[in-house]
Amino acid sequence: MTPLHPFDEAVRLSAHDGGGWAGRTHPAWGNMVGPFGGITAATLLNAAWIHPQRQGEPLALTVNYAGPVADGDFRIDAFAVRTTRSTQHWTMALQQGGEVAATATAVFATRRDTWAAGELAAPPAPAPEHVAPTPSPGRVAWSERYEMRFVSGAWPDFLQPAEVADSHSLLWIRDEPPRPLDALALAAICDAFYPRVFRRRSSFTPAGTVSMTVHFHADAAALAAQGSAPVLGSARGQRFAQGFFDQRAEVWGRGGQLLASSQQSVYFKA
Amino acid sequence: MTPLHPFDEAVRLSAHDGGGWAGRTHPAWGNMVGPFGGITAATLLNAAWIHPQRQGEPLALTVNYAGPVADGDFRIDAFAVRTTRSTQHWTMALQQGGEVAATATAVFATRRDTWAAGELAAPPAPAPEHVAPTPSPGRVAWSERYEMRFVSGAWPDFLQPAEVADSHSLLWIRDEPPRPLDALALAAICDAFYPRVFRRRSSFTPAGTVSMTVHFHADAAALAAQGSAPVLGSARGQRFAQGFFDQRAEVWGRGGQLLASSQQSVYFKA
Repeated sequence: MTPLHPFDEAVRLSAHDGGGWAGRTHPAWGNMVGPFGGITAATLLNAAWIHPQRQGEPLALTVNYAGPVADGDFRIDAFAVRTTRSTQHWTMALQQGGEVAATATAVFATRRDTWAAGELAAPPAPAPEHVAPTPSPGRVAWSERYEMRFVSGAWPDFLQPAEVADSHSLLWIRDEPPRPLDALALAAICDAFYPRVFRRRSSFTPAGTVSMTVHFHADAAALAAQGSAPVLGSARGQRFAQGFFDQRAEVWGRGGQLLASSQQSVYFKA
Repeated sequence: MTPLHPFDEAVRLSAHDGGGWAGRTHPAWGNMVGPFGGITAATLLNAAWIHPQRQGEPLALTVNYAGPVADGDFRIDAFAVRTTRSTQHWTMALQQGGEVAATATAVFATRRDTWAAGELAAPPAPAPEHVAPTPSPGRVAWSERYEMRFVSGAWPDFLQPAEVADSHSLLWIRDEPPRPLDALALAAICDAFYPRVFRRRSSFTPAGTVSMTVHFHADAAALAAQGSAPVLGSARGQRFAQGFFDQRAEVWGRGGQLLASSQQSVYFKA
């Protein structure tokens, strides 16, 4: 039996005795405290994705990180609240020890061919093979789960804090080890751009995502066509104030096709 | 007794006999079918905002439009799912006739002074008094509830369809009649940028928001300081494909301060 990819191991769910789904955090996806938010987002999406009532493909996902997730077992409840001709609306919640640690909503949609236009072009970037992989800073396990080739805005040198004029990063990113792209992995990648306050101040500050939204632009076939090739990610903060900032991100695939656009609100201490 | 502003009339909620809140759609905010999505978003946010358990100020709001809202009475249930030292997480649902028509999540946060930086600058625009108000196209009631001064990307001439290269609009916008800005009104404004597919194709197409997320960057005091002056809004579509597109928007206030950033996923027929 082929061992599962660590991503598939981490998002794996089984029927929970008390209803809903049972899951478990995976050490390969550890963050400073508890698991990487991106893997939690993917796991919440998976709870609807594998549900027998699910219709259509992911269109929108919002995950609210309500409290710390401890390493260990968790339970996810997922409910199809409303199904229309073209969309299906889900609400999800992740619990540990009877307390809700994350809430989420997802919209699944039945896609059909229509007029189409890509408006937001991918920023210019050298091909991934011409950009060297950046070693992970090694402070957290999850960053080892991605190969990141930074075109600009690599991990700051935390030893030399200095405020810089913008918080932008542009990078080629793929799962490590390589894994064919799907909506779950794409959702996780949208959270893989380290907190923009680190970049803006070139320093480490306690920070954590409070709420993340991902809008998906590609169906399963289009994502599968990406294979395990790197995708181009761009992330930047827009405003930092009063302990929070927003962070928007876009992910493009082959041929400069926009695959996902994302926005998150992040807590920081400073 | 001073009559309520139509915005305050529309978002008004009272205790529902069966628990939760009771509300009613307002004809001044009518859309092609049912109410304007922005007023529904504001009303859902209000259900948490006026709740006796609410702590902090709006940080993030996601509203999923699950089905049509009919003109008439509705019920909103709002639950504080988790309260931490700095954030409070809410889930809301709007029902009509026993069916959920919208779901939402909101995060409220206790803001405190920290290091701050505005990174996304407001695009250059003439002062609002130098831009003429654009007459509403008059097809829907809600557009009469805003004074819109388009710097670029005004309502298309629906009689002359033609594909244009970008879907961007830049405009000064305020409530009509004027009303001091608050988080509820700001959430509604984030949905007041007409569907980008109208602009991109210079034609009318059935379209409706499926999911909208708003991230707030200003506390109540900063919003109150805006008074009823116009705010600068920018909106554009990023990718249109397979019956859906995303639409991002930013709203800036006095001194070029970013007040809100927003992203929505929109259904369209074409």
